[in-house]
Amino acid sequence: MNWQLARRADRLNPSTIREILKLTEQTGIVSLAGGLPSADTFPVAAMQEATARVLRDTPREALQYAASEGYPPLREWVAAEMRAQGLQADAAQVLITTGSQQGLDLVGKVLIDPGSTVAVESPTYLGALQAFAPYEPEFLAVEGDDQGPLPQALEAARGARFVYLLPNFQNPTGRCLSAARRLALVQRARDIGLPIVEDNPYGDLWFDAPPPPPLSAAAGDGAVYLGSFSKVLAPGLRLGYVIAPKALYAKLLQAKQSADLHTPGFNQRIVYEVIKNGFLREHVPTIRARYKTHRDAMRDALQRHLPAGCRWAAPSGGMFFWVELPTRLDATALLPRAVAAGMAYVPGAPFFPQGGHANTLRLSFVTVAPALIEQGVAALGRVLADS
Amino acid sequence: MNWQLARRADRLNPSTIREILKLTEQTGIVSLAGGLPSADTFPVAAMQEATARVLRDTPREALQYAASEGYPPLREWVAAEMRAQGLQADAAQVLITTGSQQGLDLVGKVLIDPGSTVAVESPTYLGALQAFAPYEPEFLAVEGDDQGPLPQALEAARGARFVYLLPNFQNPTGRCLSAARRLALVQRARDIGLPIVEDNPYGDLWFDAPPPPPLSAAAGDGAVYLGSFSKVLAPGLRLGYVIAPKALYAKLLQAKQSADLHTPGFNQRIVYEVIKNGFLREHVPTIRARYKTHRDAMRDALQRHLPAGCRWAAPSGGMFFWVELPTRLDATALLPRAVAAGMAYVPGAPFFPQGGHANTLRLSFVTVAPALIEQGVAALGRVLADS
Repeated sequence: MNWQLARRADRLNPSTIREILKLTEQTGIVSLAGGLPSADTFPVAAMQEATARVLRDTPREALQYAASEGYPPLREWVAAEMRAQGLQADAAQVLITTGSQQGLDLVGKVLIDPGSTVAVESPTYLGALQAFAPYEPEFLAVEGDDQGPLPQALEAARGARFVYLLPNFQNPTGRCLSAARRLALVQRARDIGLPIVEDNPYGDLWFDAPPPPPLSAAAGDGAVYLGSFSKVLAPGLRLGYVIAPKALYAKLLQAKQSADLHTPGFNQRIVYEVIKNGFLREHVPTIRARYKTHRDAMRDALQRHLPAGCRWAAPSGGMFFWVELPTRLDATALLPRAVAAGMAYVPGAPFFPQGGHANTLRLSFVTVAPALIEQGVAALGRVLADS
Repeated sequence: MNWQLARRADRLNPSTIREILKLTEQTGIVSLAGGLPSADTFPVAAMQEATARVLRDTPREALQYAASEGYPPLREWVAAEMRAQGLQADAAQVLITTGSQQGLDLVGKVLIDPGSTVAVESPTYLGALQAFAPYEPEFLAVEGDDQGPLPQALEAARGARFVYLLPNFQNPTGRCLSAARRLALVQRARDIGLPIVEDNPYGDLWFDAPPPPPLSAAAGDGAVYLGSFSKVLAPGLRLGYVIAPKALYAKLLQAKQSADLHTPGFNQRIVYEVIKNGFLREHVPTIRARYKTHRDAMRDALQRHLPAGCRWAAPSGGMFFWVELPTRLDATALLPRAVAAGMAYVPGAPFFPQGGHANTLRLSFVTVAPALIEQGVAALGRVLADS
């Protein structure tokens, strides 16, 4: 049978990074290539208790079809949490999604026409590029500096459907936007009528001080905000949320309904049971402390082992270091040698919507023990010194 | 802020039926309008055991990110189950989805271009129309008779991207395609190069004899098959699957990855724990027996209470009766009077892609106790007798 594919299927392609990760999955090497949170942080006991309670007290409700908007108490919880961060959200604006990846897909489905422009940071989260791509946008890379995208550079994005921003400990660079940069970006975006899609998977993972308020707090109905329970509880539950202005919410909800009817009510009720009495206030600091120790170990190892000519900055939160090698080096070409030397990283090039930047790479510090981080970075240092 | 929507957002609209269901949610009436399975059939004890086991034995794996394809043992289970039904499936062709609704969305995303034709039964499952619609197809209603779509009518669908078929106890009509009709449809589809998308949410809910083998068993690489755990275990887990020919599988997988990365591994492992030792062989017959009793109650009530000029046929499985009123009656217009009389149904018109058929309605027999079915149908009979 000859299956005729939709044109957008041309834009669906295997993730370069997933293909690379397969290469790095051989045992015995120190993989700093992953993008996973540490399974040591998953609150198993709390999950056991909450799950048992849900199946004891409300099994029929938890296992039945449920509202596309999400479980009402969880939506209330999210709205209250966001209000505490300065975002004036009402539960009616909260849409529970099957991971925040689904939020990206729904935003793309509702806002992107073939050939329309979507402005993104450069580099940016690869999963967002993959979520948007099948809706056939043209990606516009917003110019930036070490502090993030430049407000004046948004001018080039005038008329774009939206600008996609990750303010906190961005994947892949780890950088966090300052309060001043946020406000300047919001102001400029408003001036030119450019909607903002704000994605915040890592904001709770700060090491020294909480990040500034979300851009959405200042942007009002000019922003959609995406959040996730993947990094503060566990990603295997696939639970995220979108907070959208009312004008957009109805369409996102219809898109959600046609995409999977609703996010598992079972999972929503379990997570609500876990968090409803302030559990995250005790739990998230333990993740921060753990990840900070790992961050320090990687910072020290990079200082000890990376040859001159390499640039990086220690992130103040999140899961990743971003390293720029001397421009003559190609991180993709070097990867097999790194693997042979006993370590793996993710080349940075795929994170750039317009390609280039072959001399960059991303290192995760959260899943590997500090002693192994030292060992892995030392191996990387040897490879680079010989290159 | 002026959010410019994608053109496809015009095709995202509130479900007529969901809006109608809101009207019928008032307490004190007998609602035969629902589309839910009976919560009395959810295997709570088995779920409790399985969940406890998953969180005790493999909590880190269950709560971590997982493969987009799905949990390998569950994919193997699905493939073996389908082989037992005559479909030569390999686990490598099984994609686990977030409910079979997501399977419909992914199929639409990969196969439908704006303006391309999608052939559907008339009436057909409304959720499928909603999943496909945002990809902007033209729907072509395949002509049928009481036995289902007519093989020779597929000729009109030559050049369509696919024909969407629900062979077993279709929602909304309840009818089951005969073996001969299936083979004739497959043969005609193959002759004209028309791919088949086969959706089977209700096939396990037979009352007297299992339905004939799936169309996909005869269609080979000319069909995609969609299945679900929603009606045999519980819909709140959101667990379905797609079995696709290899040529299509890779694109569906990429679409899945960009849509929500993967279906919750937690849910997949729990379901596998529940079913791995043959649980469904004991459990599903209890659902069948229960639903059959309800079906009998509704059949008897319809015979007793519906005035002359109404047509229906008792379904041999599934969850629904389909009733044709005298053509002068409009089920949507009558609904407020039915609600006032103490019962609710779903008007049939929204299930027809090209509209019309105002004199049809759907009744669910699975969630309401037999005595209340009698009461609800009696109320319907009074309203119809007065109309």
